[in-house]
Amino acid sequence: MRMLFKELMIVFIFMSVSISANADEGMWLYNDTPYQLLKDRYGFEPTSAWLEHVQKSSVRFNSGGSGSFVSENGLIISNHHVGADALQKFSDAEHNYYRDGFYARSQKEEKRCLDLELNVLMSIEDVTDRVNAAVNPDTNPEEAFVARRAAMAEIEKGSLEKTGLRSDVVTLYQGGRYHLYRFKKYTDVRLVFSPEQHIAFFGGDPDNFEYPRFDLDICLFRAYENGKPAKVEHYLKFSSKGVSEGDLVFVSGHPGNTSRQLTMAEFEYLRDQYFPYVLQRLNSLEVMLLAYSARSDENARRARDTLFGVQNSRKARDGMFAGLMDSQLMTQKQTAEQALRTAVAQNPNAKEVLPSWERIADAQQVIARNAQHYNLLEGAHAFNSTLFGIARTVLRAVEEKAKPNGERLREFRDSNLESLELQLFSEEPIYDDFEQVKLADSLTWLVKQLGYSHPLVQKVLVDRSPRQCAAELVLGTKLKDVAVRRKLYAGTVADVEATNDLMIELARLVDPEARSVRKIIETQDEIKRQAHAKIAQARFAFEKTSSYPDATFTLRLAFGTVTGYEENGQAIPFQTTLAGLYKRAAAHHYEPPFDLPRRWIDRKNKLNLNTPFNFVSTADIIGGNSGSPVVNRQGEFVGIIFDGNLQSLVLDFAYTDFQARAVSVNSQAIIEALRKVYGAAELVDEIVGRKRS
Amino acid sequence: MRMLFKELMIVFIFMSVSISANADEGMWLYNDTPYQLLKDRYGFEPTSAWLEHVQKSSVRFNSGGSGSFVSENGLIISNHHVGADALQKFSDAEHNYYRDGFYARSQKEEKRCLDLELNVLMSIEDVTDRVNAAVNPDTNPEEAFVARRAAMAEIEKGSLEKTGLRSDVVTLYQGGRYHLYRFKKYTDVRLVFSPEQHIAFFGGDPDNFEYPRFDLDICLFRAYENGKPAKVEHYLKFSSKGVSEGDLVFVSGHPGNTSRQLTMAEFEYLRDQYFPYVLQRLNSLEVMLLAYSARSDENARRARDTLFGVQNSRKARDGMFAGLMDSQLMTQKQTAEQALRTAVAQNPNAKEVLPSWERIADAQQVIARNAQHYNLLEGAHAFNSTLFGIARTVLRAVEEKAKPNGERLREFRDSNLESLELQLFSEEPIYDDFEQVKLADSLTWLVKQLGYSHPLVQKVLVDRSPRQCAAELVLGTKLKDVAVRRKLYAGTVADVEATNDLMIELARLVDPEARSVRKIIETQDEIKRQAHAKIAQARFAFEKTSSYPDATFTLRLAFGTVTGYEENGQAIPFQTTLAGLYKRAAAHHYEPPFDLPRRWIDRKNKLNLNTPFNFVSTADIIGGNSGSPVVNRQGEFVGIIFDGNLQSLVLDFAYTDFQARAVSVNSQAIIEALRKVYGAAELVDEIVGRKRS
Repeated sequence: MRMLFKELMIVFIFMSVSISANADEGMWLYNDTPYQLLKDRYGFEPTSAWLEHVQKSSVRFNSGGSGSFVSENGLIISNHHVGADALQKFSDAEHNYYRDGFYARSQKEEKRCLDLELNVLMSIEDVTDRVNAAVNPDTNPEEAFVARRAAMAEIEKGSLEKTGLRSDVVTLYQGGRYHLYRFKKYTDVRLVFSPEQHIAFFGGDPDNFEYPRFDLDICLFRAYENGKPAKVEHYLKFSSKGVSEGDLVFVSGHPGNTSRQLTMAEFEYLRDQYFPYVLQRLNSLEVMLLAYSARSDENARRARDTLFGVQNSRKARDGMFAGLMDSQLMTQKQTAEQALRTAVAQNPNAKEVLPSWERIADAQQVIARNAQHYNLLEGAHAFNSTLFGIARTVLRAVEEKAKPNGERLREFRDSNLESLELQLFSEEPIYDDFEQVKLADSLTWLVKQLGYSHPLVQKVLVDRSPRQCAAELVLGTKLKDVAVRRKLYAGTVADVEATNDLMIELARLVDPEARSVRKIIETQDEIKRQAHAKIAQARFAFEKTSSYPDATFTLRLAFGTVTGYEENGQAIPFQTTLAGLYKRAAAHHYEPPFDLPRRWIDRKNKLNLNTPFNFVSTADIIGGNSGSPVVNRQGEFVGIIFDGNLQSLVLDFAYTDFQARAVSVNSQAIIEALRKVYGAAELVDEIVGRKRS
Repeated sequence: MRMLFKELMIVFIFMSVSISANADEGMWLYNDTPYQLLKDRYGFEPTSAWLEHVQKSSVRFNSGGSGSFVSENGLIISNHHVGADALQKFSDAEHNYYRDGFYARSQKEEKRCLDLELNVLMSIEDVTDRVNAAVNPDTNPEEAFVARRAAMAEIEKGSLEKTGLRSDVVTLYQGGRYHLYRFKKYTDVRLVFSPEQHIAFFGGDPDNFEYPRFDLDICLFRAYENGKPAKVEHYLKFSSKGVSEGDLVFVSGHPGNTSRQLTMAEFEYLRDQYFPYVLQRLNSLEVMLLAYSARSDENARRARDTLFGVQNSRKARDGMFAGLMDSQLMTQKQTAEQALRTAVAQNPNAKEVLPSWERIADAQQVIARNAQHYNLLEGAHAFNSTLFGIARTVLRAVEEKAKPNGERLREFRDSNLESLELQLFSEEPIYDDFEQVKLADSLTWLVKQLGYSHPLVQKVLVDRSPRQCAAELVLGTKLKDVAVRRKLYAGTVADVEATNDLMIELARLVDPEARSVRKIIETQDEIKRQAHAKIAQARFAFEKTSSYPDATFTLRLAFGTVTGYEENGQAIPFQTTLAGLYKRAAAHHYEPPFDLPRRWIDRKNKLNLNTPFNFVSTADIIGGNSGSPVVNRQGEFVGIIFDGNLQSLVLDFAYTDFQARAVSVNSQAIIEALRKVYGAAELVDEIVGRKRS
């Protein structure tokens, strides 16, 4: 379940530059596909129509994952764990859709998601020159960052006004390129079908990131426009044949973030500071959430999606951290960096590149010194509360909206306000008790990090214990009421100041320090961006191969072979079957997390147990690819990505196809289960393209 | 379940001095009982026969708890969670006694514990003068510590040789007094009865440290001598009447450790360094153990007792840490300390006491700087493995035993060797996979604490990842074989050096640094001991009231009133009933941890549901008191301590009877359950004193 991106955004996103590609490596840009590589390696030459079709069939879930259209009537398939955010938000004490599943037998029953936004990439335009033209290379980094941000905001605003499409300037190759991505946006998205969590996530945390697997990790939505199912030109034809060993397959999705082109200084920071911190925080959150969940079924339901996210992140990061303690991997990185530095040093034309590594190392040291405060304040690790997030957004919105578009914090740029408002005015349920527990725990985290006597701690707690403080804050805010949010958001700075809302007061109390540390980090990021751009250009020049940028949660095309691997001397077959599911459940006495939903037990006899269930391939994927369609040469949907194995966790830092594999659900299993376990004949008909009778 | 002491020993034990007693405060020494207080407050005057009887009926479980004799045939009652260590050790994949319970229907079936040692306090002798005579007050602290340790070891050795009794010199009032405790020792201890964990720990982690409660947290053992049940003169008569509201009750047990008389410098250290560290470590351990346990039933069984201990410690420490963030509590401490310092400053005779606070603060700073290394190395937080513990003990034993008794590390003093060998040569099962998981996790912990590049980390890992390193170590040792341990232990330093045992090599690799940091801490403790002794004497002089020393896992007598309390405006009754158990289970749909063992459901109709189940009192208890008998004025057994409520967690730092309560099982519920749920008629007959037919 590593593929979910939102849980990966806990601290910083590190950006990086391209590398030359080997084997099935690569998260390729749609406007820079590796034609030659595919031709040489697989004898496959995608046409531009093929590429456009797959691109426009691909869907980004802004809650943190991927998906694809699978019918002309706007039907979208993604993972259960990508849909989890939506499932959680419209469940209540009586309806636990996340755990128990859902099926709308008619369009009328399809259930609208509260704040889900989907994006479909319609076009890409290179705006590198326009962005760079705004930045005077001799100016200081602080001003350079501000100028660059302003240029991006203006390009986005202009594009939105001109095309009506969501428009984002995307930084690629760590500043080597800036592309303007235009998206068709869907905000009326309705749930059509979800299986039970027990079959979507069969094996739970123990089986997460492992293989062989037996998970029906799917979820079906429908995009609506003007109150009617969206008619889409591009959607993937569902293959009833699935995959065979050795097949070439493509993955079209949104890998969230990779760190392959970091410098050694950045890798060491990750190993020595970032991962120890973030794992410590995740462990603390997991224990808090488990303790809260154990108190009652209803608590467990309220915390379910959050707990899943934390456990998923923890297991992923454990694996990544292990990768950074692998001396072979680090030696490779070190050797490659040294080789490039030597080459640069020996080339008189590359002189100005040479100081880049030192500049990054210096910037990284400044970041390292400020990371704790950044995480606690700007990352709100000290204030883990939905209401605090709302309070800060309201507080900053009225301040930022009063400024010119280009001078605002980036999330408040004009072109982003609609998406921001969708989140801010969400009717997502907020539970006082859960808010208090999370907030008290995170205030305690603040004390643990800085020490009780730290002025910031004293300023926040004012002689109250974290528990008392959290209770007063949650009971002293009216922000649970969406109408209150709307009113304040539409008002002025003075209006917001005039409210006595305690949560807004807290946000205001820490905002100067939060903004100030954010500015430090953003400035250092600009220094790194400029230095990385130079290193990237040197690498292009020396290595002269086609390349792809590190992942940035934008649409990418990966490819690979369907194939098993060897582990501890044992051959791991490329696919599992439905029979294997029942075998594994029985081996664990059907006890959680190896229990099966009732209907899977009752309808076992109806199933063809030889149906292929999950399979692996060498495609290059990472968190964010969850829900990505797996397509064959014909552009047909043959499966859906939902995980990578443990050995794939190092893909954050370097590609390998030795044992690392992407894990998918086979399209055949989806049809078999929908038809025979869920009796969803109409849905199957729609997916396989039969007209309804 | 707070009462288990062993989980409280994770880092340092802080020693402290006496304070004046209020209300039902006090963990009183048996040779310094508060006659006047009891007489004034309760009109009760215990005779010396009464005291001797209760004292010699009390049993210390060296695995970390308390208990008492309840029949002339050596029958002992304690808590299920105190017995857990023994239950875990003789369970295997086929017999999960810890989870499923056990009942020996005849003495033949009673099951011998692998390494359980019980102690009964037979006499107390004040040896303060002898210990202090050995220490020249003008010598430096390092030499003072060595001299004091030698004097204690010699007194103990002499006493053991003379009496044959286990002899420990106990430091009380932080060096204000040294008492020689002589114990009758039982090492042939057999399990007689244990209920299922689900009823012993009904409500699990959510209900732990909470009230009202519904737990049958008992376990019955029998002490044997020469292969026959021990005949004991002193045992507690079991009351079939239990308790009534307002009753005066006594608790005779072994509170492990309190910190009430620490100075502010020490409290601040606890708040700012100790608790943040230890909670972080406990969170990390809990996540590791839960992930391991979730993989299979057998994993869960192997990790069960360890996991319980970690969760229990975590919940206790969360509460303690919250206490230290209570500004009222800290202000009280500050005010009291300031008052005493002022009084001392104004008294010309107390001049030499004045620098004591500064000395403690200075020593505490040295400890703070060395605590991380101490915990990682000497505390073995970096090497969380049973096999590592064995390796270190073997390595050190051959070195230490070659030295004169008084010069050895304290655990290797002659008088302690028998107890040490009982542990070292235990046939406790050791599982390779669990050892590897724990060791890999703790090596990762080492990296997180010191950073990957730290010389110590590099020395241990030698370019291996923590997982590889752990695997090689566990597979490269023969210490699982008790015969190997025995042979090495009996050999010489050269013999041990000659083995190529990888785990011993690791222990040897880190031993110089471990010993060196231990010496630093022991020396600072000696400085603190001398300073605390002076402060204590000043306090005696100024406050002139009877007093008790902080808890040190030695036998103490506490007393209190059976009474409920008020919480959030609600009256919490002093006792619960069996009816309440079924009600609470039903409210949670009998789902774990609120599920009931089969026989409790089947035999519900046989039970008198009005039987009192658990009750609370104001007695002053802390971790280590688990399993302590609760006795009435007549010296009868009316219940057994098993927990304190959340509000009692601050008792580590200060006594309060506002809401803090000790939680016990009523003797009536024990009889009712044994008779009607478990059909243990013979056992009941033995307990209530009827002769067997």
